[in-house]
Amino acid sequence: MNYKMMGRIIALVVLIETALMLPAMLIALIGRDGAAAGGFLVSMGIMLALSSVSLFLTRNAPKRFFAREGMVCVGMCWVVLSLLGALPFFLSGRVPNYMDAFFETVSGFTTTGASILTDVEALGHGLLFWRSFTHWVGGMGILVFFLAIVPISGNNEGFTLHILRAESPGPSVNKMVPRMRQSAAILYWMYVALTVLDIICLLIARMPVFDAFCIAFGTAGTGGFGVLNSGCATYPPAAQNVTTVFMILFGVNFGCYYLLILRNITGMLKDEELRAYLLIILAAAVLIAFNIYGKTPDTMGVEPTVRHSAFTVGSIITTTGFSTTDFDLWPSFSKAILLVLMFCGASAGSTGGGIKVVRVLLLLKGIKRNAHHIFHPQEVQVIRFNGARVGEETMSNLNAYLAAYVFIVIGTFLILSADPVNYSVSTNFSAVMATFNNIGPGIEAVGPTQNFSGYCDLSKLVMSAAMLLGRLEIFPIFALFMPSTFRRGF
Amino acid sequence: MNYKMMGRIIALVVLIETALMLPAMLIALIGRDGAAAGGFLVSMGIMLALSSVSLFLTRNAPKRFFAREGMVCVGMCWVVLSLLGALPFFLSGRVPNYMDAFFETVSGFTTTGASILTDVEALGHGLLFWRSFTHWVGGMGILVFFLAIVPISGNNEGFTLHILRAESPGPSVNKMVPRMRQSAAILYWMYVALTVLDIICLLIARMPVFDAFCIAFGTAGTGGFGVLNSGCATYPPAAQNVTTVFMILFGVNFGCYYLLILRNITGMLKDEELRAYLLIILAAAVLIAFNIYGKTPDTMGVEPTVRHSAFTVGSIITTTGFSTTDFDLWPSFSKAILLVLMFCGASAGSTGGGIKVVRVLLLLKGIKRNAHHIFHPQEVQVIRFNGARVGEETMSNLNAYLAAYVFIVIGTFLILSADPVNYSVSTNFSAVMATFNNIGPGIEAVGPTQNFSGYCDLSKLVMSAAMLLGRLEIFPIFALFMPSTFRRGF
Repeated sequence: MNYKMMGRIIALVVLIETALMLPAMLIALIGRDGAAAGGFLVSMGIMLALSSVSLFLTRNAPKRFFAREGMVCVGMCWVVLSLLGALPFFLSGRVPNYMDAFFETVSGFTTTGASILTDVEALGHGLLFWRSFTHWVGGMGILVFFLAIVPISGNNEGFTLHILRAESPGPSVNKMVPRMRQSAAILYWMYVALTVLDIICLLIARMPVFDAFCIAFGTAGTGGFGVLNSGCATYPPAAQNVTTVFMILFGVNFGCYYLLILRNITGMLKDEELRAYLLIILAAAVLIAFNIYGKTPDTMGVEPTVRHSAFTVGSIITTTGFSTTDFDLWPSFSKAILLVLMFCGASAGSTGGGIKVVRVLLLLKGIKRNAHHIFHPQEVQVIRFNGARVGEETMSNLNAYLAAYVFIVIGTFLILSADPVNYSVSTNFSAVMATFNNIGPGIEAVGPTQNFSGYCDLSKLVMSAAMLLGRLEIFPIFALFMPSTFRRGF
Repeated sequence: MNYKMMGRIIALVVLIETALMLPAMLIALIGRDGAAAGGFLVSMGIMLALSSVSLFLTRNAPKRFFAREGMVCVGMCWVVLSLLGALPFFLSGRVPNYMDAFFETVSGFTTTGASILTDVEALGHGLLFWRSFTHWVGGMGILVFFLAIVPISGNNEGFTLHILRAESPGPSVNKMVPRMRQSAAILYWMYVALTVLDIICLLIARMPVFDAFCIAFGTAGTGGFGVLNSGCATYPPAAQNVTTVFMILFGVNFGCYYLLILRNITGMLKDEELRAYLLIILAAAVLIAFNIYGKTPDTMGVEPTVRHSAFTVGSIITTTGFSTTDFDLWPSFSKAILLVLMFCGASAGSTGGGIKVVRVLLLLKGIKRNAHHIFHPQEVQVIRFNGARVGEETMSNLNAYLAAYVFIVIGTFLILSADPVNYSVSTNFSAVMATFNNIGPGIEAVGPTQNFSGYCDLSKLVMSAAMLLGRLEIFPIFALFMPSTFRRGF
């Protein structure tokens, strides 16, 4: 392993993180929030010092490194970024327990949106901005951002590809143009453009400026941190509808938008995942609307029923986690649909979490193929997606992913159940799903009106690991724990 | 498809079922239970008439049939057997709704143990005996029994193999001796011997004779129907411990017992699945014992704590479903362990349900292999089990099974959630697991002290299908719904 080069990359990424703290610090300063501004300044000083020392120590790092080191590098970067990104919360004194601050930051970067805060508004504008901004940074992936702006010398296409693969959700990577660096840049430009559009629409819909920025960051990253204790319930209906539309848009594979830029609209509309994703949303929103109509105070008319149904479906399938109404009051059928959507998740190559629609489709195709094979053993079928043949290795990796997914859910669930707080089985299970699938709120004791502060520090650490495993789709974090990663001198 | 031969086999199996009703009818007669005896007599008459007509109509059936027809045949047999096995409950008037009677019978044959009865004891000894006996018949598989006693002329090894494969749980079939018919016979002899041993031990432990037979049937088939409203709570501790031991014994792959008969004890002890199975039971029982000690009125001393812990772990991992205490009162950690054991299930080639320990082990090996491959793409690893190489086709089928498992859980869950009764999310989910994993009781509204009668008929039909899918491990029942099964003239 080329540890020096990895250290260098992590140091550079920390440098970028330091720069990204600037706007939040300025907001704290403008708001005359001394504690927060001080917290930011000290944090930035520490980060600057750490990265400078690292860059100096690794100045003669060998330039050559192998492709697979990208995955380990991504895993390490995310852990370091979260450890340092938690400093302002802790140093400002607003989050007195460092473990809580770490949990909150991991929840931000992984675009989960699970919180340990009982009173969100008490955090102050500066820290609230940083909290929401971590969603935006984590959404498209900070190393993708790094790749887009920092030139890596030499022919490191393989390394770049592996970073993109580790950080972009889905079974295969968006390779829009042959050069990976360009792909990363295109991705980020589309991400920025869509976010700006979202902010403009929210402002038109009369959302306050500060809220518009923060909510747009949470929407773009499909995170879910809000800035009000009431979540999104008190925003004007138009702003809620804008958020619905943009949550769904950010759950689309960004490769589709690139096709749109290339004016290949037919290609985009033929995308199997996009069609399934939109169809699932439509079906779920319609079924829920019929099911909840007239059943709660919020769903007495057609307009609010449709608005809350569409918002909640968009929020849950993209694993954003914003809420405009307490869906715990809905009938069981609607709650069951939402639960299934949580597992399903958004599209690959989007900022959303969950298993991803493309994986669900491939699994269904795999079942069909194997069932056919059992009954007609002579016939060999290949699995096709968007017309192209899906390799057996992709299927095998997909299955390993699904199996690992199940085992991680079980393991995390058992650990949380052993917590001294002794929450109910449904609370613990929902906490696992909420963190590992990067959704945010769970049900009962960790529901939308509650928070995760009741768990002990060990449980919070385990849930932080679950959020990272969920965001990076398991294997980059696995790599950090596999002895063979560090044993061999590859 | 050779429909005539399939009709002939089903008719012969119905004939066997008619004979199997005799003991229950005699018990009803001895107990002077006129309604039950009449119900049995009329049912047997109907079944005799139906099978005679079928046998006459299919007398010139072509002898030659293909291997894969075995799977379709198994699926059909189980549906027909359940439809007819439900008649005595219905015709005696003790279960006035035929759908309820069908649910109860499917629950019996599939060794689920989920019930729609509010008062078990009101059923009378004759029907209670039949109800428990269906567990015993379904446990090892009725077609395996058929194969063991009815000579099929011609060289039909392939067909026989496929019936065994469809009916015996696990990713591969127990082929103890080269001739499949002999294998089936050996399986049944071991099954009978172990059941007789169980009955003797229960009698020594002072369980009443009638109860000893019925509880032994429920234990052997890992079913879980009891004969008292109090379940197993009022039996002497010794009888409870005997049941614990035999539940665990019936969850072992019967291939291990064949190795024991061959005096190949080293081979048996080296079996990876057996070791994992026993290790899981030991670990779970110890953890739960420490967790529940002193926490409920039933677990105030060491002896009852260990007894209830071991009994419950044995009952849940083998998906039997007997209970000696209300484990809904246990702390969350213990309940979480039990939930995980429900998914895990017993060994392949046993009478237990669930995913099976061998599949869990293979999935873990698959994850390890693929994780290794991602980081070391040049190296090719093969998966080994008990020293032998596991083919890629087995892995692929295993993955398709797991994926199908997940989708069936989701589909059933959504349908039950739409039930007008509007049970809670946890009730509905536990009902899915309880039926599809062939466990029996769920939690809350379908918990050990409750029953499944609250659901509407459609939900009961869907749960009946789930029980059959669970018992036959999905694909034989899939075959009944796949258009290609009947379209092609293979």
